[in-house]
Amino acid sequence: MIHVVGHTATDYISHVHHLPEKNCSTHISERQIYFGGGAANIAAGIAVLGGDVTLISCTGSDFAGSEYDLWMKKIGIHQQFFLVPDANTPTAFMFTDDAGDQMTFFEWGASGAFATSEAPHLPFVHMATADPEFNCRVAERSEFASFDPGQDVFWYTREQLGTILANTDILFANQHEVHQMCVTLGVSRETLVRQVGTAIFTMSGDGSTLYSEGAEYFIPVVPVSLVDPTGAGDAYRAGFLTAFVRGYPPLTCCKIGTVTASFVVEYAGCQTHLADWSAMETRYRQHVGALDSPQSGKD
Amino acid sequence: MIHVVGHTATDYISHVHHLPEKNCSTHISERQIYFGGGAANIAAGIAVLGGDVTLISCTGSDFAGSEYDLWMKKIGIHQQFFLVPDANTPTAFMFTDDAGDQMTFFEWGASGAFATSEAPHLPFVHMATADPEFNCRVAERSEFASFDPGQDVFWYTREQLGTILANTDILFANQHEVHQMCVTLGVSRETLVRQVGTAIFTMSGDGSTLYSEGAEYFIPVVPVSLVDPTGAGDAYRAGFLTAFVRGYPPLTCCKIGTVTASFVVEYAGCQTHLADWSAMETRYRQHVGALDSPQSGKD
Repeated sequence: MIHVVGHTATDYISHVHHLPEKNCSTHISERQIYFGGGAANIAAGIAVLGGDVTLISCTGSDFAGSEYDLWMKKIGIHQQFFLVPDANTPTAFMFTDDAGDQMTFFEWGASGAFATSEAPHLPFVHMATADPEFNCRVAERSEFASFDPGQDVFWYTREQLGTILANTDILFANQHEVHQMCVTLGVSRETLVRQVGTAIFTMSGDGSTLYSEGAEYFIPVVPVSLVDPTGAGDAYRAGFLTAFVRGYPPLTCCKIGTVTASFVVEYAGCQTHLADWSAMETRYRQHVGALDSPQSGKD
Repeated sequence: MIHVVGHTATDYISHVHHLPEKNCSTHISERQIYFGGGAANIAAGIAVLGGDVTLISCTGSDFAGSEYDLWMKKIGIHQQFFLVPDANTPTAFMFTDDAGDQMTFFEWGASGAFATSEAPHLPFVHMATADPEFNCRVAERSEFASFDPGQDVFWYTREQLGTILANTDILFANQHEVHQMCVTLGVSRETLVRQVGTAIFTMSGDGSTLYSEGAEYFIPVVPVSLVDPTGAGDAYRAGFLTAFVRGYPPLTCCKIGTVTASFVVEYAGCQTHLADWSAMETRYRQHVGALDSPQSGKD
């Protein structure tokens, strides 16, 4: 069982011709609702791949019985939610105009409850963006921890990052997050890598790098028709972690993560086009090679 | 049976500390979802008062089974919807900051279908804000028509307003809408009043005026603790129309409309605090006087 800690959120993505000035209105020409939140994206990716996963999130009274709730149950995510009756589940409203300019209104909502919630003791946990202090407590109480700071990397203090990394077995980050962690900690990239057993740094469309036991491996992306890169990192982590608990070695896990991510970017939305294990395996064979059975599973 | 033609919409009302600049984000400190749309507000008001009402709106694939759908069915609104599978039901996103400045993003969505839909032949219809051309066709085919131009008053051409008013038996408008109709038509307020049999002009917290058969009557508001004036006009129309089809004379209908509106403004949202007939009647007796049975009903 993989536990994933962090946000469940709903994203309202709208297109307008012009963003409004103050005290003006504008017309929405197109609008879509997507299921999101980094932790929920990862949990959904794991569940659809066939992994056993529990999502630990904060939700409001608007969640039970919602389409998102039904979707999670349909794909088999176990929910371990801190319910905040007086709040909404985190929600983001994003508006983009014809020129590509954006405005985002983000509602933290129920996630405020992370700050005061008791951290569970977990055998295998991935910590996605959430309350930094809560993630610290989760890291300290976990047996095996994986971590990605996500866009909240700025909110982590030096002490918080130090606590989490000291308890992290696998670190995921993109180039921007790596840079920010190095700045916050006052260390080099090499020192950061040495602090954790295994590090995977992603470079958007330029592939990813695995640092494991002193060695460094480059994993190229799978060439697909890119529609929306959002959610690629979460899908990568879902693929990696699902493969990891099945006993695949880290380099194979990275390749499985890359293949898993290649599905998500073909459609808009982070949970719109998730791969099951069979679809992932087929594409893996086409672009990477044979996928042998792992030697030992931890699932 | 009263038919009400116009928008069904969902309003997302959010508070933020600061409205965002382009390419920036802001945090939502509070957010509520309200059921709205002028026609739907009026239909809900009539239904809760115990009137028999059918709502004619355009809805998208997001409506069936939604909380709004369930609410309408619970209070007994008959739905006669133009379903647009590829569109959303009209939705408004309103953001207000600490200084009281606002930004509104409005999604017309499914309501685009009014333009190409066939107007029904109706015995008693109220036309709220909708597509002006559709309202023209409804007015021409109706036996008895009530009309309020609402905030779309700017979109009506002189010809459209002329067509509608020539087929309107009862006109509702606030001071701003009266002014705009006079400008569009190039007529005086007196001429506007003479064009319809009965006109009711509302003046927010300053009461309303009934023009009927050459006479003019002033109806003061019912003093209540004002929380949110939104929806007062729709509730007034709901009260008036429900009473009118029950056979009350226009002046009594205005008083019932005023009392009905007094409930809605005590809470935020247009359908949050609707009065049933008994509650309306109790407050009517307290503030207006005895409410006799009508001489003849048209219900």
